[in-house]
Amino acid sequence: MPSDVELNEQYYQHIVRNLSKRGVEMKDIAEIVMFLEKEYVHGLDEKLAIYAINKVLHKREAQNAIMTGIELDILAEKDLLSAPMERIMRTDESTYGVDENLAITLSSLYGSVSVTNYGYVDKLKHGILGKLNDKSTGKINVFLDDLVGAIAAAACGWLAHNETQIADYFATGKLE
Amino acid sequence: MPSDVELNEQYYQHIVRNLSKRGVEMKDIAEIVMFLEKEYVHGLDEKLAIYAINKVLHKREAQNAIMTGIELDILAEKDLLSAPMERIMRTDESTYGVDENLAITLSSLYGSVSVTNYGYVDKLKHGILGKLNDKSTGKINVFLDDLVGAIAAAACGWLAHNETQIADYFATGKLE
Amino acid sequence: MPSDVELNEQYYQHIVRNLSKRGVEMKDIAEIVMFLEKEYVHGLDEKLAIYAINKVLHKREAQNAIMTGIELDILAEKDLLSAPMERIMRTDESTYGVDENLAITLSSLYGSVSVTNYGYVDKLKHGILGKLNDKSTGKINVFLDDLVGAIAAAACGWLAHNETQIADYFATGKLE
Amino acid sequence: MPSDVELNEQYYQHIVRNLSKRGVEMKDIAEIVMFLEKEYVHGLDEKLAIYAINKVLHKREAQNAIMTGIELDILAEKDLLSAPMERIMRTDESTYGVDENLAITLSSLYGSVSVTNYGYVDKLKHGILGKLNDKSTGKINVFLDDLVGAIAAAACGWLAHNETQIADYFATGKLE
Repeated sequence: MPSDVELNEQYYQHIVRNLSKRGVEMKDIAEIVMFLEKEYVHGLDEKLAIYAINKVLHKREAQNAIMTGIELDILAEKDLLSAPMERIMRTDESTYGVDENLAITLSSLYGSVSVTNYGYVDKLKHGILGKLNDKSTGKINVFLDDLVGAIAAAACGWLAHNETQIADYFATGKLE
Repeated sequence: MPSDVELNEQYYQHIVRNLSKRGVEMKDIAEIVMFLEKEYVHGLDEKLAIYAINKVLHKREAQNAIMTGIELDILAEKDLLSAPMERIMRTDESTYGVDENLAITLSSLYGSVSVTNYGYVDKLKHGILGKLNDKSTGKINVFLDDLVGAIAAAACGWLAHNETQIADYFATGKLE
Repeated sequence: MPSDVELNEQYYQHIVRNLSKRGVEMKDIAEIVMFLEKEYVHGLDEKLAIYAINKVLHKREAQNAIMTGIELDILAEKDLLSAPMERIMRTDESTYGVDENLAITLSSLYGSVSVTNYGYVDKLKHGILGKLNDKSTGKINVFLDDLVGAIAAAACGWLAHNETQIADYFATGKLE
Repeated sequence: MPSDVELNEQYYQHIVRNLSKRGVEMKDIAEIVMFLEKEYVHGLDEKLAIYAINKVLHKREAQNAIMTGIELDILAEKDLLSAPMERIMRTDESTYGVDENLAITLSSLYGSVSVTNYGYVDKLKHGILGKLNDKSTGKINVFLDDLVGAIAAAACGWLAHNETQIADYFATGKLE
């Protein structure tokens, strides 16, 4: 039986690998974080943004939401879902809502500001989110676009709640 | 393309059929509703409880949560999930939380009282919930037990918010 | 003891009166609804938008959230809160979050799409929200801006879930 | 302008003082934590329970929810609320829900297990919660009973997510 720390790392690797396979790199998420937080965290750079994203991607409840959502996207692509669910996923039915709920749950782990940030980028389809939402590719990203938006929003929440550590980074150039 | 009303009915039938296949009948959920609400709704009987449950099972956001959760249970039983997800589902990992989040989302559609009611029966493992939670059967009900508790709790919420209609029922014996 | 229906109407009047006193008219909220939904509900006019808003303002859980938030704004303006709370309200502390949580709870009554819509207008400070957020007026609107955004978002959720009734309206010009 | 760390400590002291004034001591909350977690965390004692509670009481979003709820109870006792709100608070109206929503928000900061734990003790009126809910005392604890339940549930969530630190405590007798 793997330890808690081992599971955490295993889930993290699983997520990063799957995000990448589906066209989402850390720098794409960092770009959304910088778009959202630039005027609040002066000096925010990609390194710090990715550091915050990694904090999120190591949080167990966040990992669970992300793994579950990506799983459903992949299963839908493989045509492995029951007829009604397959239909919902293929049409990306606007009243489905489970994708958004998972994203809200994830972002709310980092406070309510994260939820409004998620809502904002989700509507804007900013950056990589626009590409993920492009139905012409044949890929099914019902959950992925919401989750990526929520990961970015959660990372913003982490930044907003860790001012001291960020000030240290700007003073020393070191993280952790 | 089916109409909204047709989809609603189709999802409803899909859910009732799947609940039944997995050992959950309407009367099992009604029993939880009566256990929870007996002292608040005097005269509450199985007919009224099932009426309230049917209201919940026709609400689209509730349908979506239920269909998604049951789907994941079935896929895990068929061994169709990725390794980390399969492991989580087979061990019913206590920190998973997506099952409970889906249930909280469902119950919160009917107000916050429904969420506390869900939490209560989930901890108690009342009635059918105890059976669903029994790991010795080999069935995977990671989502199902939470969803059934949440459906019951949501039905209680419907009862709490529809006093006038209930009074009419007690006066006339008729529903709707 | 007033009946449920009487309380509902009383709370509705209390809310509309307080919104107006604090500079928010029904047409201001309708403007946000139209901004958000124009491309999804073709033919959406102010009359239908206000109809949807009134649906929200008659829902008890929505009423409770709105009344509570406005109350706290008024009490802060009257200097009736304890020192730490007074400080939080006067500085509109960015990590406070209870205002946003109340708004998320309200909007989530109408599905997760409403939550993303709320997040979107909250960030944009669209229309009346910009005025409410203007600190130079001396007014305290810590909760009001979030609540108004959430009411509009919830009304959008109502519209998204009541296509049949809306089609009837466009066909007959009549509501209800 | 006080620093983030100073504010945190100030809010913590404000909360502990107000809980105590209203009849809630740390050991009362610890008793609920031990009731909930005894069979999951073997060896759980009051010291560790209070340590977990203090973690919760230092988390900003938790502090904000607690301060806001207690404030409303105190204002209602002083008769400072508007007529409809005063009526809701004095009758502890069952459909109010903002008290439970605040508690759900607080507990969900520590994962969904915390929400079901909160729902459970809220229904049971376990320990101090029964006393807080006793209307015969003339005190208004509309928010306090829910918040205390949520603080305990959140502390359980902290325990569930910090196994390594707890194992260290059992090995060394030292915390932090």
